[in-house]
Amino acid sequence: MFAECLEHVRKKSPLIHNITNYVTVNDVANAELACGASPIMADEPDEVEDIQTICDGLNINIGTLNKRTVGSMHIAGERALALHHTLLLDPVGAGASRLRTQTAVELADSLQFDVIRGNMSEIKALTTGSSTTKGVDADAADAVTDENLDSMAEFAKKCAAAFHTIVSITGAIDLVADPQRCFVIRNGRPEMSRITGTGCQLSGIMTAYVAANRDNALAAAAAAVVLMGASGEVGWSHMQEGDGNATYRNRIIDAICNMDGKTLDSMAVYEIR
Amino acid sequence: MFAECLEHVRKKSPLIHNITNYVTVNDVANAELACGASPIMADEPDEVEDIQTICDGLNINIGTLNKRTVGSMHIAGERALALHHTLLLDPVGAGASRLRTQTAVELADSLQFDVIRGNMSEIKALTTGSSTTKGVDADAADAVTDENLDSMAEFAKKCAAAFHTIVSITGAIDLVADPQRCFVIRNGRPEMSRITGTGCQLSGIMTAYVAANRDNALAAAAAAVVLMGASGEVGWSHMQEGDGNATYRNRIIDAICNMDGKTLDSMAVYEIR
Amino acid sequence: MFAECLEHVRKKSPLIHNITNYVTVNDVANAELACGASPIMADEPDEVEDIQTICDGLNINIGTLNKRTVGSMHIAGERALALHHTLLLDPVGAGASRLRTQTAVELADSLQFDVIRGNMSEIKALTTGSSTTKGVDADAADAVTDENLDSMAEFAKKCAAAFHTIVSITGAIDLVADPQRCFVIRNGRPEMSRITGTGCQLSGIMTAYVAANRDNALAAAAAAVVLMGASGEVGWSHMQEGDGNATYRNRIIDAICNMDGKTLDSMAVYEIR
Repeated sequence: MFAECLEHVRKKSPLIHNITNYVTVNDVANAELACGASPIMADEPDEVEDIQTICDGLNINIGTLNKRTVGSMHIAGERALALHHTLLLDPVGAGASRLRTQTAVELADSLQFDVIRGNMSEIKALTTGSSTTKGVDADAADAVTDENLDSMAEFAKKCAAAFHTIVSITGAIDLVADPQRCFVIRNGRPEMSRITGTGCQLSGIMTAYVAANRDNALAAAAAAVVLMGASGEVGWSHMQEGDGNATYRNRIIDAICNMDGKTLDSMAVYEIR
Repeated sequence: MFAECLEHVRKKSPLIHNITNYVTVNDVANAELACGASPIMADEPDEVEDIQTICDGLNINIGTLNKRTVGSMHIAGERALALHHTLLLDPVGAGASRLRTQTAVELADSLQFDVIRGNMSEIKALTTGSSTTKGVDADAADAVTDENLDSMAEFAKKCAAAFHTIVSITGAIDLVADPQRCFVIRNGRPEMSRITGTGCQLSGIMTAYVAANRDNALAAAAAAVVLMGASGEVGWSHMQEGDGNATYRNRIIDAICNMDGKTLDSMAVYEIR
Repeated sequence: MFAECLEHVRKKSPLIHNITNYVTVNDVANAELACGASPIMADEPDEVEDIQTICDGLNINIGTLNKRTVGSMHIAGERALALHHTLLLDPVGAGASRLRTQTAVELADSLQFDVIRGNMSEIKALTTGSSTTKGVDADAADAVTDENLDSMAEFAKKCAAAFHTIVSITGAIDLVADPQRCFVIRNGRPEMSRITGTGCQLSGIMTAYVAANRDNALAAAAAAVVLMGASGEVGWSHMQEGDGNATYRNRIIDAICNMDGKTLDSMAVYEIR
């Protein structure tokens, strides 16, 4: 199943428009290229409609937002919706400042995203900061564990229902949910948290995966999570003495670049709840 | 010939001011350092005149342009011209949005560039979007091949004549032309297109090469193209099992860093038409 | 002594807010993660107070300053002071443009920094551009050598006294001074100057080191310098044939990631004047 999603990305090579932070933007571009997609970055209000028009998807990441680029996010998002392009939100740092929380909430309220992807704290900030009509009971703690997995999966489904979208909550255990089903994925390595930008890369890749698999969006989003985690495992297996987080960063993107569908399916560790 | 150009860069260590996109900016800086130049990045209108004054060249790359930085490009460009510094335009994404096409055309119309470097689509957008007084018959298809090489080389020369500049059109086969002569260069690897920023790096390096070889600008621009391509070949020869586009990115810059003149001349695959 | 500083960073994992340039920002983030800290980047005036509030320190780097971010630097800096957070200034390029010199001077005059870190030219521009009430006699030449070491160490102490701060002047020989004592550090490799961003990385790491060792700030700042230099030595020892500045960049961050206190103390080459 995941193999098919991967092959569609490699065959269709979707063009992804990224309005993303300047910290990890280079890795996002190389990760999208590695998975078979083509990236373009553009954040000026005057051009984002034109750019989105020629693309297949839009990846909005609020990591280093400013007033100019927040405006661009809304303009480009409206255009993506009008053209039925794939639309993903990565609410980086929602909860860390009022501006981020508010921006994430306004984007989620005004644009119909195909996927919202973040860590548990960001997704909780998004849901609790939201207007009460979309209120989600976010009493879950921040880490998904075997002990709280049932309630966390339920929380992910409720978020998905509240925002009429797919919600992907990533951490040690990753969740990818629509209102009915939740993929629980156990790929990846704890050392990935010592690298900046694996989440941003995943959002870029996920946009490409959903764009190339519109009829199978939930599985495609899950496939992107499996790809990132499995590539983290493959990359780790290539680490040598003296290597650290900078080399690991490269090894993960390398593994994305070399991944094939058969390996992806064989490495996937997941269940559906 | 190319060896001499390389050695001038390493000896003079030109200081290059880059107004460039935030996607590939780090690689541009490291590639300029690798080739023997010194980079400085500055894009605020209030300081670009001062910065350009202490530099030897200006590399303008419109990859993630915004209104503020477009203004800076014009201010810095005027200053570079007044001081007879080397001036290069990389019209990244010209044709992808009206803002990019218009910005590229306005820059090319108002500033006398020493070199304009882009892929065929960008150069075509620049010429067809230009005012008719500079109209170039851009009916060429986008890929330079053995079949259309004569007409493509002719197109490159006409562009060079129209803009009174050197034009470098890079792809599987690279062209570097002034109105009279066109270098046709066949170095490089197809896998370089799986990395973001090799074109941006080339523009940065080319600015340094022309700045350090003012009396021999066409050969210097060609030398930069050969350097990038040959480094792509050397870098590829160091790839090991499990390596992918992230490691290849590093290997190419490493090869630029280690290139010497003798190797450059021996690896060059080119003809002049 | 340095070992203890390192271990405090790894144990406390300080959260560092960086307002820094877009050239080296990714390396700064990965270097901070490598040393055991957590980075966050935010430069929008509307959110920097909120972000600084949840952090332990602020790293201000003027490398690609613009009017918007200069405002953010002052706002965030005031907040850091009010909360007694660690505050560091890296006056990148002070002296290269009036805007940079003026911005560095205004920041240093209006905010009480814990540390100011730069190369000799930047520190001299900062002191000579300053209002006369803080005038420091900056007749020192730009390179610290064995011949001028006494006067350079004296200069560093005077700068520290003038700005009521720790001053770190890095180059072939590194100085870290308060008004009474000056650490003279001889770790590192000359090849580090062929990589963009080692200074920026050091500033990020130094902010974390001082934040995690508030009672021992001078030694902590010196420990960060030793860490960077020793990691440059370790990274160089892992270089293989064909490797160049791009791979060296990764090897240095890898070495920061793998450094332990015992190794740090054993590798430190320093004296106190």
